[in-house]
Amino acid sequence: MTDQGTLYIVSAPSGAGKTSLLKAMLADTADVQISVSHTTRKQRAGEQNGRDYHFVSVDDFQRMIVQNAFLEYAEVFGNYYGTSREWVQAQLDEGTDIILEIDWQGARQIRELMPACRTVFILPPSNEALEQRLHGRGQDDEEVIAKRMAAARREMSHYDEYDYLVINDDFEVAKRELQAIFVAERQTTNNQKRRHAQLIDNLLA
Amino acid sequence: MTDQGTLYIVSAPSGAGKTSLLKAMLADTADVQISVSHTTRKQRAGEQNGRDYHFVSVDDFQRMIVQNAFLEYAEVFGNYYGTSREWVQAQLDEGTDIILEIDWQGARQIRELMPACRTVFILPPSNEALEQRLHGRGQDDEEVIAKRMAAARREMSHYDEYDYLVINDDFEVAKRELQAIFVAERQTTNNQKRRHAQLIDNLLA
Repeated sequence: MTDQGTLYIVSAPSGAGKTSLLKAMLADTADVQISVSHTTRKQRAGEQNGRDYHFVSVDDFQRMIVQNAFLEYAEVFGNYYGTSREWVQAQLDEGTDIILEIDWQGARQIRELMPACRTVFILPPSNEALEQRLHGRGQDDEEVIAKRMAAARREMSHYDEYDYLVINDDFEVAKRELQAIFVAERQTTNNQKRRHAQLIDNLLA
Repeated sequence: MTDQGTLYIVSAPSGAGKTSLLKAMLADTADVQISVSHTTRKQRAGEQNGRDYHFVSVDDFQRMIVQNAFLEYAEVFGNYYGTSREWVQAQLDEGTDIILEIDWQGARQIRELMPACRTVFILPPSNEALEQRLHGRGQDDEEVIAKRMAAARREMSHYDEYDYLVINDDFEVAKRELQAIFVAERQTTNNQKRRHAQLIDNLLA
Protein backbone atom coordinates (compact mmCIF):
# COMPACT_ATOMS: atom_id res chain seq x y z
CA MET A 1 0.00 0.00 0.00
CA THR A 2 1.52 3.28 -1.08
CA ASP A 3 -1.24 5.70 -0.18
CA GLN A 4 -2.24 6.71 3.31
CA GLY A 5 -5.00 9.08 4.34
CA THR A 6 -4.69 11.71 7.03
CA LEU A 7 -6.84 11.85 10.16
CA TYR A 8 -8.37 15.30 10.70
CA ILE A 9 -10.04 16.71 13.75
CA VAL A 10 -12.40 19.59 13.10
CA SER A 11 -13.72 21.48 16.13
CA ALA A 12 -15.83 24.60 16.47
CA PRO A 13 -18.26 26.22 18.86
CA SER A 14 -21.88 25.41 18.14
CA GLY A 15 -23.11 28.02 15.65
CA ALA A 16 -19.81 28.50 13.80
CA GLY A 17 -21.13 26.67 10.75
CA LYS A 18 -18.83 23.65 10.96
CA THR A 19 -21.32 21.06 9.71
CA SER A 20 -22.46 23.14 6.71
CA LEU A 21 -18.86 23.92 5.78
CA LEU A 22 -17.79 20.29 5.95
CA LYS A 23 -20.80 19.17 3.95
CA ALA A 24 -20.12 21.74 1.23
CA MET A 25 -16.45 20.83 1.14
CA LEU A 26 -17.07 17.09 0.96
CA ALA A 27 -19.42 17.60 -1.99
CA ASP A 28 -16.47 18.54 -4.20
CA THR A 29 -13.41 16.94 -2.61
CA ALA A 30 -12.48 13.35 -3.39
CA ASP A 31 -11.18 10.83 -0.86
CA VAL A 32 -12.34 12.65 2.27
CA GLN A 33 -15.01 11.28 4.56
CA ILE A 34 -16.59 12.11 7.90
CA SER A 35 -15.94 9.42 10.48
CA VAL A 36 -18.80 6.94 10.94
CA SER A 37 -19.31 6.34 14.67
CA HIS A 38 -20.30 3.17 16.43
CA THR A 39 -23.45 3.61 18.49
CA THR A 40 -25.82 1.63 20.68
CA ARG A 41 -28.84 3.78 19.92
CA LYS A 42 -31.68 2.36 17.81
CA GLN A 43 -31.38 2.60 14.04
CA ARG A 44 -33.95 5.12 12.71
CA ALA A 45 -35.92 4.94 9.48
CA GLY A 46 -33.74 5.98 6.57
CA GLU A 47 -30.49 5.36 8.43
CA GLN A 48 -28.10 2.88 6.93
CA ASN A 49 -25.74 0.70 8.94
CA GLY A 50 -22.13 1.53 8.02
CA ARG A 51 -23.06 4.80 6.35
CA ASP A 52 -24.76 6.80 9.12
CA TYR A 53 -23.54 4.76 12.06
CA HIS A 54 -22.21 1.34 12.87
CA PHE A 55 -25.10 0.06 14.95
CA VAL A 56 -24.00 -2.34 17.68
CA SER A 57 -25.44 -3.82 20.88
CA VAL A 58 -24.60 -2.47 24.32
CA ASP A 59 -22.74 -5.73 25.03
CA ASP A 60 -20.63 -5.37 21.91
CA PHE A 61 -19.93 -1.71 22.64
CA GLN A 62 -18.83 -2.44 26.19
CA ARG A 63 -16.63 -5.27 24.97
CA MET A 64 -14.99 -2.82 22.56
CA ILE A 65 -14.39 -0.38 25.41
CA VAL A 66 -12.65 -3.10 27.39
CA GLN A 67 -10.58 -4.04 24.34
CA ASN A 68 -9.50 -0.41 24.01
CA ALA A 69 -11.03 -0.43 20.54
CA PHE A 70 -12.16 3.22 20.58
CA LEU A 71 -10.11 6.30 19.86
CA GLU A 72 -12.74 8.15 21.88
CA TYR A 73 -16.23 7.38 23.10
CA ALA A 74 -18.95 8.98 25.19
CA GLU A 75 -22.33 8.17 26.68
CA VAL A 76 -25.05 10.63 25.73
CA PHE A 77 -28.61 10.28 27.10
CA GLY A 78 -28.08 6.60 27.82
CA ASN A 79 -26.59 5.73 24.43
CA TYR A 80 -22.97 5.10 23.61
CA TYR A 81 -21.16 6.76 20.72
CA GLY A 82 -17.57 5.95 19.81
CA THR A 83 -14.92 6.12 17.10
CA SER A 84 -13.44 2.74 16.29
CA ARG A 85 -9.69 2.81 16.01
CA GLU A 86 -9.72 -0.15 13.61
CA TRP A 87 -12.35 1.39 11.33
CA VAL A 88 -10.45 4.69 11.15
CA GLN A 89 -7.18 2.91 10.42
CA ALA A 90 -8.78 0.83 7.65
CA GLN A 91 -10.05 4.01 5.95
CA LEU A 92 -6.68 5.74 6.26
CA ASP A 93 -4.97 2.65 4.83
CA GLU A 94 -7.20 2.92 1.78
CA GLY A 95 -5.96 6.48 1.23
CA THR A 96 -9.11 8.17 2.51
CA ASP A 97 -8.81 11.21 4.76
CA ILE A 98 -11.09 10.88 7.77
CA ILE A 99 -12.65 13.79 9.64
CA LEU A 100 -13.62 13.55 13.29
CA GLU A 101 -16.02 16.25 14.46
CA ILE A 102 -15.21 16.42 18.15
CA ASP A 103 -14.61 19.06 20.80
CA TRP A 104 -11.32 20.26 22.24
CA GLN A 105 -11.27 17.56 24.90
CA GLY A 106 -11.70 14.77 22.36
CA ALA A 107 -9.07 16.48 20.21
CA ARG A 108 -6.56 16.29 23.05
CA GLN A 109 -7.14 12.56 23.43
CA ILE A 110 -6.77 11.87 19.72
CA ARG A 111 -3.58 13.95 19.45
CA GLU A 112 -2.05 11.62 22.02
CA LEU A 113 -3.18 8.45 20.24
CA MET A 114 -2.67 9.58 16.64
CA PRO A 115 0.08 12.21 16.64
CA ALA A 116 0.07 12.42 12.81
CA CYS A 117 -3.46 13.84 12.86
CA ARG A 118 -4.07 17.39 11.66
CA THR A 119 -6.43 19.66 13.52
CA VAL A 120 -8.64 22.50 12.32
CA PHE A 121 -10.63 24.96 14.41
CA ILE A 122 -13.47 26.99 12.91
CA LEU A 123 -14.33 30.39 14.36
CA PRO A 124 -17.31 32.64 13.68
CA PRO A 125 -16.45 36.20 12.57
CA SER A 126 -17.86 37.80 15.76
CA ASN A 127 -19.89 37.16 18.89
CA GLU A 128 -22.79 39.02 17.28
CA ALA A 129 -22.77 36.66 14.30
CA LEU A 130 -22.51 33.66 16.63
CA GLU A 131 -25.44 34.86 18.75
CA GLN A 132 -27.52 35.48 15.63
CA ARG A 133 -26.80 31.97 14.38
CA LEU A 134 -27.68 30.44 17.74
CA HIS A 135 -30.91 32.47 17.81
CA GLY A 136 -31.67 31.51 14.24
CA ARG A 137 -32.01 27.88 15.22
CA GLY A 138 -35.29 28.30 17.10
CA GLN A 139 -37.19 30.39 19.55
CA ASP A 140 -35.11 29.70 22.62
CA ASP A 141 -35.23 32.18 25.45
CA GLU A 142 -32.36 34.47 26.37
CA GLU A 143 -31.15 32.27 29.19
CA VAL A 144 -30.69 29.28 26.89
CA ILE A 145 -28.85 31.46 24.38
CA ALA A 146 -26.63 32.88 27.10
CA LYS A 147 -25.69 29.37 28.22
CA ARG A 148 -24.87 28.38 24.65
CA MET A 149 -22.77 31.51 24.21
CA ALA A 150 -20.84 30.66 27.37
CA ALA A 151 -20.29 27.11 26.14
CA ALA A 152 -19.16 28.46 22.75
CA ARG A 153 -16.69 30.77 24.45
CA ARG A 154 -15.24 27.90 26.48
CA GLU A 155 -14.77 25.86 23.32
CA MET A 156 -13.26 28.82 21.43
CA SER A 157 -10.73 29.47 24.18
CA HIS A 158 -8.88 26.35 22.93
CA TYR A 159 -8.47 27.48 19.31
CA ASP A 160 -4.74 27.86 19.87
CA GLU A 161 -4.23 24.10 20.30
CA TYR A 162 -5.10 23.51 16.62
CA ASP A 163 -2.87 23.48 13.54
CA TYR A 164 -5.24 25.51 11.38
CA LEU A 165 -7.78 28.22 12.05
CA VAL A 166 -10.55 28.95 9.56
CA ILE A 167 -12.78 31.97 10.06
CA ASN A 168 -16.27 31.44 8.72
CA ASP A 169 -17.18 34.98 7.71
CA ASP A 170 -17.91 34.53 3.99
CA PHE A 171 -19.11 30.93 3.60
CA GLU A 172 -17.62 30.38 0.12
CA VAL A 173 -14.25 31.80 1.14
CA ALA A 174 -14.16 29.66 4.28
CA LYS A 175 -15.10 26.59 2.26
CA ARG A 176 -12.23 27.19 -0.17
CA GLU A 177 -9.82 27.75 2.70
CA LEU A 178 -10.90 24.53 4.39
CA GLN A 179 -10.57 22.63 1.13
CA ALA A 180 -7.11 24.09 0.51
CA ILE A 181 -5.94 22.62 3.82
CA PHE A 182 -6.91 19.12 2.71
CA VAL A 183 -5.32 19.56 -0.73
CA ALA A 184 -2.13 21.10 0.66
CA GLU A 185 -1.64 18.43 3.31
CA ARG A 186 -1.58 15.83 0.53
CA GLN A 187 1.32 17.74 -1.03
CA THR A 188 3.55 17.54 2.03
CA THR A 189 6.74 15.76 1.08
CA ASN A 190 6.10 13.00 3.63
CA ASN A 191 2.71 12.18 2.14
CA GLN A 192 3.87 12.55 -1.45
CA LYS A 193 6.89 10.30 -0.89
CA ARG A 194 4.60 7.50 0.12
CA ARG A 195 2.01 8.13 -2.58
CA HIS A 196 4.53 8.48 -5.42
CA ALA A 197 7.35 6.22 -4.23
CA GLN A 198 7.54 4.45 -7.60
CA LEU A 199 7.51 7.66 -9.62
CA ILE A 200 10.27 9.17 -7.48
CA ASP A 201 12.36 5.99 -7.67
CA ASN A 202 12.11 6.09 -11.44
CA LEU A 203 13.04 9.77 -11.61
CA LEU A 204 16.14 9.33 -9.50
CA ALA A 205 17.19 5.92 -10.85
CA MET B 1 0.96 45.71 11.74
CA THR B 2 -1.13 42.57 12.13
CA ASP B 3 -0.47 40.82 8.84
CA GLN B 4 2.74 39.15 7.79
CA GLY B 5 3.52 37.40 4.54
CA THR B 6 5.34 34.11 4.21
CA LEU B 7 8.60 33.61 2.34
CA TYR B 8 8.44 30.68 -0.09
CA ILE B 9 11.22 28.93 -1.89
CA VAL B 10 10.19 27.09 -5.03
CA SER B 11 12.78 24.83 -6.66
CA ALA B 12 12.61 22.41 -9.56
CA PRO B 13 14.81 20.88 -12.19
CA SER B 14 14.88 22.78 -15.45
CA GLY B 15 12.00 21.43 -17.54
CA ALA B 16 9.62 20.66 -14.66
CA GLY B 17 7.38 23.59 -15.59
CA LYS B 18 8.04 25.70 -12.50
CA THR B 19 7.89 29.09 -14.18
CA SER B 20 4.66 28.36 -16.09
CA LEU B 21 3.03 26.97 -12.95
CA LEU B 22 3.99 29.97 -10.85
CA LYS B 23 2.81 32.37 -13.54
CA ALA B 24 -0.56 30.64 -13.82
CA MET B 25 -0.94 30.53 -10.05
CA LEU B 26 -0.04 34.19 -9.55
CA ALA B 27 -2.64 35.21 -12.13
CA ASP B 28 -5.42 34.20 -9.74
CA THR B 29 -3.93 34.39 -6.26
CA ALA B 30 -3.89 37.69 -4.36
CA ASP B 31 -0.99 38.92 -2.24
CA VAL B 32 1.68 36.63 -3.66
CA GLN B 33 4.61 37.92 -5.65
CA ILE B 34 7.81 36.59 -7.19
CA SER B 35 10.89 38.13 -5.61
CA VAL B 36 12.40 41.00 -7.60
CA SER B 37 16.17 40.59 -7.68
CA HIS B 38 18.85 43.24 -7.59
CA THR B 39 21.16 43.04 -10.60
CA THR B 40 24.12 44.84 -12.12
CA ARG B 41 23.25 43.87 -15.67
CA LYS B 42 22.03 46.53 -18.10
CA GLN B 43 18.33 47.35 -18.16
CA ARG B 44 16.77 46.06 -21.40
CA ALA B 45 14.04 47.68 -23.47
CA GLY B 46 10.67 46.98 -21.88
CA GLU B 47 12.13 46.20 -18.48
CA GLN B 48 11.00 48.30 -15.58
CA ASN B 49 13.15 49.12 -12.57
CA GLY B 50 11.52 47.71 -9.41
CA ARG B 51 9.20 45.41 -11.36
CA ASP B 52 11.57 43.19 -13.38
CA TYR B 53 14.73 43.90 -11.42
CA HIS B 54 16.21 46.46 -9.12
CA PHE B 55 18.96 47.78 -11.38
CA VAL B 56 22.03 48.90 -9.44
CA SER B 57 25.67 49.69 -10.17
CA VAL B 58 28.48 47.22 -9.51
CA ASP B 59 29.74 49.53 -6.74
CA ASP B 60 26.36 49.57 -5.04
CA PHE B 61 25.99 45.82 -5.39
CA GLN B 62 29.42 45.15 -3.90
CA ARG B 63 28.68 47.54 -1.04
CA MET B 64 25.48 45.58 -0.35
CA ILE B 65 27.47 42.33 -0.31
CA VAL B 66 29.81 43.80 2.29
CA GLN B 67 26.84 45.03 4.35
CA ASN B 68 25.41 41.51 4.29
CA ALA B 69 22.33 42.93 2.60
CA PHE B 70 21.59 39.86 0.47
CA LEU B 71 19.79 36.71 1.47
CA GLU B 72 21.61 35.09 -1.43
CA TYR B 73 23.50 36.34 -4.46
CA ALA B 74 25.47 34.98 -7.38
CA GLU B 75 27.59 36.14 -10.28
CA VAL B 76 26.46 34.86 -13.66
CA PHE B 77 28.36 35.69 -16.87
CA GLY B 78 29.95 38.73 -15.24
CA ASN B 79 26.72 40.16 -13.81
CA TYR B 80 25.58 40.05 -10.20
CA TYR B 81 22.11 38.90 -9.15
CA GLY B 82 20.93 38.99 -5.55
CA THR B 83 17.90 38.94 -3.25
CA SER B 84 17.81 41.90 -0.92
CA ARG B 85 16.98 40.95 2.64
CA GLU B 86 15.47 44.40 3.31
CA TRP B 87 13.28 44.34 0.21
CA VAL B 88 11.97 40.85 1.04
CA GLN B 89 11.25 41.85 4.64
CA ALA B 90 9.39 44.99 3.53
CA GLN B 91 7.13 42.91 1.28
CA LEU B 92 6.48 40.35 4.01
CA ASP B 93 5.67 43.16 6.46
CA GLU B 94 3.01 44.39 4.07
CA GLY B 95 1.37 40.96 4.17
CA THR B 96 2.61 39.86 0.74
CA ASP B 97 3.90 36.30 0.30
CA ILE B 98 7.21 36.32 -1.58
CA ILE B 99 8.46 33.52 -3.79
CA LEU B 100 12.14 32.90 -4.41
CA GLU B 101 12.90 30.72 -7.42
CA ILE B 102 16.26 29.26 -6.43
CA ASP B 103 18.00 25.91 -6.46
CA TRP B 104 18.57 23.51 -3.57
CA GLN B 105 21.83 25.20 -2.57
CA GLY B 106 20.20 28.62 -2.31
CA ALA B 107 17.30 26.99 -0.46
CA ARG B 108 19.70 25.67 2.18
CA GLN B 109 21.13 29.14 2.76
CA ILE B 110 17.71 30.77 3.05
CA ARG B 111 16.43 28.10 5.46
CA GLU B 112 19.27 29.09 7.78
CA LEU B 113 18.57 32.83 7.51
CA MET B 114 14.76 32.71 7.43
CA PRO B 115 13.66 29.57 9.26
CA ALA B 116 9.98 30.51 8.95
CA CYS B 117 10.17 30.10 5.17
CA ARG B 118 8.18 27.35 3.47
CA THR B 119 9.70 25.33 0.67
CA VAL B 120 8.14 23.66 -2.34
CA PHE B 121 9.77 21.32 -4.83
CA ILE B 122 8.23 20.63 -8.24
CA LEU B 123 8.86 17.31 -9.97
CA PRO B 124 8.05 16.22 -13.52
CA PRO B 125 5.94 13.05 -13.81
CA SER B 126 8.77 11.02 -15.42
CA ASN B 127 12.22 11.22 -16.96
CA GLU B 128 10.61 10.73 -20.39
CA ALA B 129 8.40 13.79 -19.86
CA LEU B 130 11.37 15.79 -18.58
CA GLU B 131 13.50 14.84 -21.57
CA GLN B 132 10.68 15.72 -23.96
CA ARG B 133 10.29 19.13 -22.33
CA LEU B 134 14.03 19.78 -22.51
CA HIS B 135 14.03 18.74 -26.19
CA GLY B 136 11.00 20.87 -26.86
CA ARG B 137 12.92 24.00 -26.05
CA GLY B 138 15.09 23.93 -29.18
CA GLN B 139 17.16 21.81 -31.46
CA ASP B 140 19.97 20.99 -29.05
CA ASP B 141 22.02 17.91 -29.69
CA GLU B 142 21.89 14.77 -27.59
CA GLU B 143 24.98 15.64 -25.59
CA VAL B 144 23.51 18.95 -24.42
CA ILE B 145 20.26 17.20 -23.47
CA ALA B 146 22.16 14.50 -21.59
CA LYS B 147 24.02 17.15 -19.60
CA ARG B 148 20.76 18.90 -18.74
CA MET B 149 19.21 15.61 -17.69
CA ALA B 150 22.16 14.94 -15.40
CA ALA B 151 21.84 18.43 -13.89
CA ALA B 152 18.08 17.89 -13.45
CA ARG B 153 18.71 14.62 -11.66
CA ARG B 154 21.20 16.25 -9.30
CA GLU B 155 18.65 18.95 -8.46
CA MET B 156 15.84 16.40 -8.01
CA SER B 157 17.93 14.34 -5.61
CA HIS B 158 17.28 17.08 -3.01
CA TYR B 159 13.48 17.00 -3.18
CA ASP B 160 13.36 15.50 0.30
CA GLU B 161 14.68 18.70 1.91
CA TYR B 162 11.46 20.54 1.01
CA ASP B 163 8.19 20.90 2.93
CA TYR B 164 5.96 20.28 -0.06
CA LEU B 165 6.26 18.25 -3.23
CA VAL B 166 4.09 19.06 -6.25
CA ILE B 167 4.10 16.72 -9.24
CA ASN B 168 3.50 18.52 -12.49
CA ASP B 169 1.73 15.80 -14.46
CA ASP B 170 -1.59 17.49 -15.29
CA PHE B 171 -0.85 21.23 -15.38
CA GLU B 172 -4.25 22.37 -14.04
CA VAL B 173 -4.14 19.87 -11.17
CA ALA B 174 -0.59 20.89 -10.25
CA LYS B 175 -1.59 24.56 -10.38
CA ARG B 176 -4.49 23.97 -7.97
CA GLU B 177 -2.23 21.97 -5.66
CA LEU B 178 0.38 24.72 -5.62
CA GLN B 179 -2.29 27.34 -4.98
CA ALA B 180 -3.77 25.26 -2.15
CA ILE B 181 -0.40 25.34 -0.39
CA PHE B 182 -0.40 29.13 -0.35
CA VAL B 183 -4.02 29.32 0.80
CA ALA B 184 -3.58 26.66 3.49
CA GLU B 185 -0.42 28.22 4.91
CA ARG B 186 -2.40 31.39 5.56
CA GLN B 187 -4.83 29.34 7.64
CA THR B 188 -2.18 28.04 10.03
CA THR B 189 -3.07 29.12 13.55
CA ASN B 190 0.17 31.07 13.90
CA ASN B 191 -0.54 33.16 10.81
CA GLN B 192 -4.22 33.57 11.56
CA LYS B 193 -3.54 34.68 15.14
CA ARG B 194 -1.50 37.56 13.82
CA ARG B 195 -3.88 38.44 11.01
CA HIS B 196 -7.03 38.28 13.12
CA ALA B 197 -5.72 39.27 16.54
CA GLN B 198 -8.48 41.85 17.05
CA LEU B 199 -11.27 39.51 15.93
CA ILE B 200 -10.03 36.76 18.26
CA ASP B 201 -9.67 39.18 21.17
CA ASN B 202 -13.26 40.28 20.65
CA LEU B 203 -14.54 36.70 20.45
CA LEU B 204 -12.86 35.67 23.69
CA ALA B 205 -13.39 38.93 25.61
